[in-house]
Amino acid sequence: MTSTDPFLAACRGLPHGRTPVWFMRQAGRSLPEYRAVRGEGSILDAIADPSLAAELTLQPVLRYGVDAAILYSDIVVPVSAVGFGVDVRPGVGPVVEQPFADESDLERLRPLEPETDTPYVLEALKILVDESPVPVIGFAGAPFTVASYLIEGSPSRTYGRTKALMSGNPDLWFRLIDRLADLAISSLRSQIDGGAAAVQLFDSWAGALSPAAYERFVQPATRRVFDAVPDVPRIHFGVGTGEILHLMADTGCDVVGVDWRIPIDVARDRLGPDTVLQGNLDPAVCLGSIDVVEAEVADILRRNDGHPGHVFNLGHGVLPETDPAVLEQVVHQVHEMSPNLNSLRNHRMT
Amino acid sequence: MTSTDPFLAACRGLPHGRTPVWFMRQAGRSLPEYRAVRGEGSILDAIADPSLAAELTLQPVLRYGVDAAILYSDIVVPVSAVGFGVDVRPGVGPVVEQPFADESDLERLRPLEPETDTPYVLEALKILVDESPVPVIGFAGAPFTVASYLIEGSPSRTYGRTKALMSGNPDLWFRLIDRLADLAISSLRSQIDGGAAAVQLFDSWAGALSPAAYERFVQPATRRVFDAVPDVPRIHFGVGTGEILHLMADTGCDVVGVDWRIPIDVARDRLGPDTVLQGNLDPAVCLGSIDVVEAEVADILRRNDGHPGHVFNLGHGVLPETDPAVLEQVVHQVHEMSPNLNSLRNHRMT
Repeated sequence: MTSTDPFLAACRGLPHGRTPVWFMRQAGRSLPEYRAVRGEGSILDAIADPSLAAELTLQPVLRYGVDAAILYSDIVVPVSAVGFGVDVRPGVGPVVEQPFADESDLERLRPLEPETDTPYVLEALKILVDESPVPVIGFAGAPFTVASYLIEGSPSRTYGRTKALMSGNPDLWFRLIDRLADLAISSLRSQIDGGAAAVQLFDSWAGALSPAAYERFVQPATRRVFDAVPDVPRIHFGVGTGEILHLMADTGCDVVGVDWRIPIDVARDRLGPDTVLQGNLDPAVCLGSIDVVEAEVADILRRNDGHPGHVFNLGHGVLPETDPAVLEQVVHQVHEMSPNLNSLRNHRMT
Repeated sequence: MTSTDPFLAACRGLPHGRTPVWFMRQAGRSLPEYRAVRGEGSILDAIADPSLAAELTLQPVLRYGVDAAILYSDIVVPVSAVGFGVDVRPGVGPVVEQPFADESDLERLRPLEPETDTPYVLEALKILVDESPVPVIGFAGAPFTVASYLIEGSPSRTYGRTKALMSGNPDLWFRLIDRLADLAISSLRSQIDGGAAAVQLFDSWAGALSPAAYERFVQPATRRVFDAVPDVPRIHFGVGTGEILHLMADTGCDVVGVDWRIPIDVARDRLGPDTVLQGNLDPAVCLGSIDVVEAEVADILRRNDGHPGHVFNLGHGVLPETDPAVLEQVVHQVHEMSPNLNSLRNHRMT
């Protein structure tokens, strides 16, 4: 993979031929070939089967022609592997039998030894390094978002217990997210050593926090994670992050994910002209008519205005009920339209 | 109630003695006296009992000394009353047996006749006009948020079906939200005629939309609702609305609700110096230590900088597990600190 690879070049804001595109949760229930091989068991079991995980990783690459593969895995894999007691319930999300409540629960978060705790991750990567025609993205859950699952015990709308722990016992909070940062670092480093050409840190729910809370309670641990993986492009992702976008951008990441709430041009105005952005089609729009999808894709590319620092993506994961034909069309359209935009931009700049 | 009432004056941005404060969902499960009389039945049954609804409305006024009472009701009352088939499941939220799917479902949304469809609302208000020591706030669900419940069938994280209907069948979408706007208008007008001294329109989930989608698919119907109730202060509320705040403010409302994600001073910078704001303590912070709550309240008042156009509130509803003593302390602190801030401001202005 050279630096003229469109995805890797875009992540660095370097010139390249066309806007790269991939989709969060591109390997998932929206694909019939996924449903055919995946079965009904826990996702953690599927992840623990390296050849299955590699196959699921490659399915959307083959079908859609996306410019990056994201390792088929889950953000709770490291905490689960060290024995915290987490499962991922289909249709619900991560569920924790005994939620994190006090100091004694820190003992349930020992350091991760990737070679022995998650050998299947490294084996899947080994297959993908040989077989993937596009760069493979490794990933981890950001300390805040993983902490929120461990504390709440199940997906939450309010993050009440998490915020109560933060503000009520900041010492314990920082010890918790420091351990989670260490887990993310060990996991990401091993994925990079195993061949991941870029990484994404999922802080999906950070947008639930006020800017002051994010800055004090979350940003330092997140920055420590990014600082530990300087050798590949680092993507930072969350939803509903408009008010903390500048703080999320200021963590050492190379690419800032934006969801559909923030138009690409508005985000770049806010963060500076050189900012590399990933996004931002609303996955729910992909459930509607194809004309509207086309218009939205065109609008995103127009707002990006031919900037080389743009990785096209959805603003959140593919919804299970999405018609794969729609995503196929999106990939086609992004690839077709982006050179025109580049030349338009070049034209205007002369 | 004269214009020197702190709540009503603040809603108009007029000078008054102290920052008024009330809490969304102040009448609710966090209060032991609420749990004692409310029982386990559907909230719709409790709302249909005017003396119970009036009692529940007044409980937080008596306990906390808040500056406004909000009618004990629910945003699905009008659609339920015209027979759409909605229930509110405890711990879940509105649940619709047969979700809105096509044109034939419009027939299930006939106009509301408040006198005969929801006489209990008017009877509860009659009691409150006599007994409430503070202004009573009437309310309705905004067309988008009510539509999302009717279409999704239950609370959603993605609003996939709602967005698919919007973009896939805009004609049907507009006919649906026009009917919902009519329902909101009939309900609000009857509440105002019955004695409500202010109204709040809950567009709780509008923040799920992109600015372009909000502007096209939601703003016109919302504006029509506000335009129909010009005679009392009109509060507009949603969560996670940072990117559409300017559009929500531009609907004819008098007061813009902001949640904890947008600091008060940032919101006022964005919307203009005369903007009247309501908010914005994070309800989850109220589950933490009282020191942190105090610091957050002080920070909000500092950011408001003595501006008369500020109604203190949470950024969303009181969480059921909140200790009422914390909210009592918040009311006390807001009342104690605000005159100092006013005089500080006056001092600086000389």
